[in-house]
Amino acid sequence: MIKAQTLKGFRDFLPKEAKKRQYVLDTLKKVFESYGFEPLETPSLEYEEILLGKYGSEGDKLMYRFEDNGKRKVALRYDQTVPLARVVAQYANELPMPFKRYQIQNVWRAENTQKGRYREFLQCDADIVGVSSPLADAEIIACILDATQKLGFKGYSMRINDRQIFKKYNLSPKAIVELDKTDKEGPIVFLKQLMLEGKSNQEGDAIFDAIVKSEQTENIRNLFSILRNMDYEEGRNKDFWFDQTLARGLDYYTGPIFELRIESYGALSVGGGGRYDNLIGMFAGKQIPAVGFAFGFDRLMEAMEELNLFPKDLQTTKVLVTIFSPELKEKSLQITSLLRDKGINTEVYLDENAKMDKQLKYADKKQIPYVVIIGPDEVSKNTVTLKNMKTRDQKTVPQENLTTMLSS
Amino acid sequence: MIKAQTLKGFRDFLPKEAKKRQYVLDTLKKVFESYGFEPLETPSLEYEEILLGKYGSEGDKLMYRFEDNGKRKVALRYDQTVPLARVVAQYANELPMPFKRYQIQNVWRAENTQKGRYREFLQCDADIVGVSSPLADAEIIACILDATQKLGFKGYSMRINDRQIFKKYNLSPKAIVELDKTDKEGPIVFLKQLMLEGKSNQEGDAIFDAIVKSEQTENIRNLFSILRNMDYEEGRNKDFWFDQTLARGLDYYTGPIFELRIESYGALSVGGGGRYDNLIGMFAGKQIPAVGFAFGFDRLMEAMEELNLFPKDLQTTKVLVTIFSPELKEKSLQITSLLRDKGINTEVYLDENAKMDKQLKYADKKQIPYVVIIGPDEVSKNTVTLKNMKTRDQKTVPQENLTTMLSS
Repeated sequence: MIKAQTLKGFRDFLPKEAKKRQYVLDTLKKVFESYGFEPLETPSLEYEEILLGKYGSEGDKLMYRFEDNGKRKVALRYDQTVPLARVVAQYANELPMPFKRYQIQNVWRAENTQKGRYREFLQCDADIVGVSSPLADAEIIACILDATQKLGFKGYSMRINDRQIFKKYNLSPKAIVELDKTDKEGPIVFLKQLMLEGKSNQEGDAIFDAIVKSEQTENIRNLFSILRNMDYEEGRNKDFWFDQTLARGLDYYTGPIFELRIESYGALSVGGGGRYDNLIGMFAGKQIPAVGFAFGFDRLMEAMEELNLFPKDLQTTKVLVTIFSPELKEKSLQITSLLRDKGINTEVYLDENAKMDKQLKYADKKQIPYVVIIGPDEVSKNTVTLKNMKTRDQKTVPQENLTTMLSS
Repeated sequence: MIKAQTLKGFRDFLPKEAKKRQYVLDTLKKVFESYGFEPLETPSLEYEEILLGKYGSEGDKLMYRFEDNGKRKVALRYDQTVPLARVVAQYANELPMPFKRYQIQNVWRAENTQKGRYREFLQCDADIVGVSSPLADAEIIACILDATQKLGFKGYSMRINDRQIFKKYNLSPKAIVELDKTDKEGPIVFLKQLMLEGKSNQEGDAIFDAIVKSEQTENIRNLFSILRNMDYEEGRNKDFWFDQTLARGLDYYTGPIFELRIESYGALSVGGGGRYDNLIGMFAGKQIPAVGFAFGFDRLMEAMEELNLFPKDLQTTKVLVTIFSPELKEKSLQITSLLRDKGINTEVYLDENAKMDKQLKYADKKQIPYVVIIGPDEVSKNTVTLKNMKTRDQKTVPQENLTTMLSS
């Protein structure tokens, strides 16, 4: 017999987890849409040459690539930014500009798996294409801060920097990656990298010093003034603040960069983004400015779990109507229909031969808060017994009172 | 430059279409959950041997299969039934029984593309695992009928038959497929197939006659009695009816089968299902009864479109706050924040240098119903101009009246 197993790095989400994911996604979508971001879906499989465009040799290794039955070289979506670039080129005339889209789909990476790293995971992006005004950067940041608040987080803040401040130091991509770790590990990893690149101890220190003392660029000043106009507060541990050591790993950022940090969750980042003006035009053959943000969805879920931010009651069924015996089935079905007609989420137990005990256990396992029992006594007196599964209390009430009791 | 294109059989869904899809999915999810079906997600990629289990040589050709970087033979999800069977075996102790799950994810098939046939498409399944009682069949049917009504359809009905009635005729799988076409093409294709299989003209006629005159099986009688108890009406063009020529193509059905037909949409089917008691246990090594239904999501979308069932206003932004000039930007930002605080879906135009005309065109393109204009006059008098983009009427009102006007 074939063993029932999943591939390493791939996950099943059973109902309990799947509901939590859905709750977060519904919240995010609602906020994104309230800011005028619209949904976009792109295919899971694309021509390999489309997806490799941006990543070259890194993508070579980390992409799921293969030949399809028609000998086309295809690859599974590696991120949602390259597909966005393709869409912007392919439907140039149809899309409103600025184009504000959100996209929430899986991406696949053939990475080594480790705690918190998966080969299939959900990406959750919001981007604005087609304007270089800092109004767009501010809009992204405002929307993300709002979403974070709606999810129930407290003590979060958007660290903001400008890639432009690194320009005069000619930092290598690797040095930028190491600089980004300052927040967690101090300057040591960055300084080591500079030494590896031939800088002296003193030169390294001087560069680091200069970076942390950098003044706000014009981009940042404009952006911050807009954010203040939108009523967001500046300052460490407030809504947003200037952090010169924020660098973000990806090398395609061209201006302001930002990272959402949950202070109450070990100051960990649950997402980031920035301005990248040279990427979206890759298929259109011209420069198209863009700014965006991506939530690390798995990290976000972890933080929500840790901070206990999920609503207590994501379970959806309100009441289980049990079946006392095959002969009394009809009565249970009628009550079920009645409750459903009143908009009450109702299950009827689906086996007329099951013992009452088994039916109650089913309600417990699914955390259904109420159970209705209709035995011969109840039928003869036109009553039902309503059992509260939490307190285990039960009372017998006239049938016509049932919907009112369950609606409250 | 790389050409911006998608693979044949794969689709982009731009915002207008993506919103419609989301509307249908949200509606379906809500109904599924109101019946106690819970969401399940499984990975896109699985071990090939898991997925091939059910399909054998058909799957060989139609599955997207490849070797991953670790030389594992993997395949993209071909349907959601085999993954469900795997989940039921893998998490036997964690799942409530009966297990009612819905699953809405993409599947991939390397089929020839043609009108309405895609290589990546959304499947929309609801199944009940673990009970053989016709209560489960009825529950599925009730839930689907309810969902169909909630989507706004009128004139739909569930055709129901029982695979058992074919048993005594020893029909080949191919003959069953042809019988299923009776509804659209008359008995001729079925009779031809019987002749190919060596039956005489007379024998064929006799078989077809006997089939269409078959009486309801016990399964069907029980199921229909439950449906009537749930207040559904029997009869052609009513909620459900017995149709002896319904056969459903798939060969794994073992009992009642059903198909949802939209009479007002050329009597086309938008989904189907049935009882399949010998499949879900394939990884568990025992028989596990199951019954389920799958919407043909693309077909459903087509029918919704044709019958004009989408809400007129799926657009999400209620008002665009324009920017009169860079100097007056602050005022527009403040109004934007104010409206957002009141829960009004608001966009601010993201380029302070854009001409008013361009900003209005943006609102038109995104079908945003209202536009706010705040020029020097408005600023000096603490007013705003509110323009109705449909009627093109505009009036200047005190700032404090704006939110009330837009909330109504």
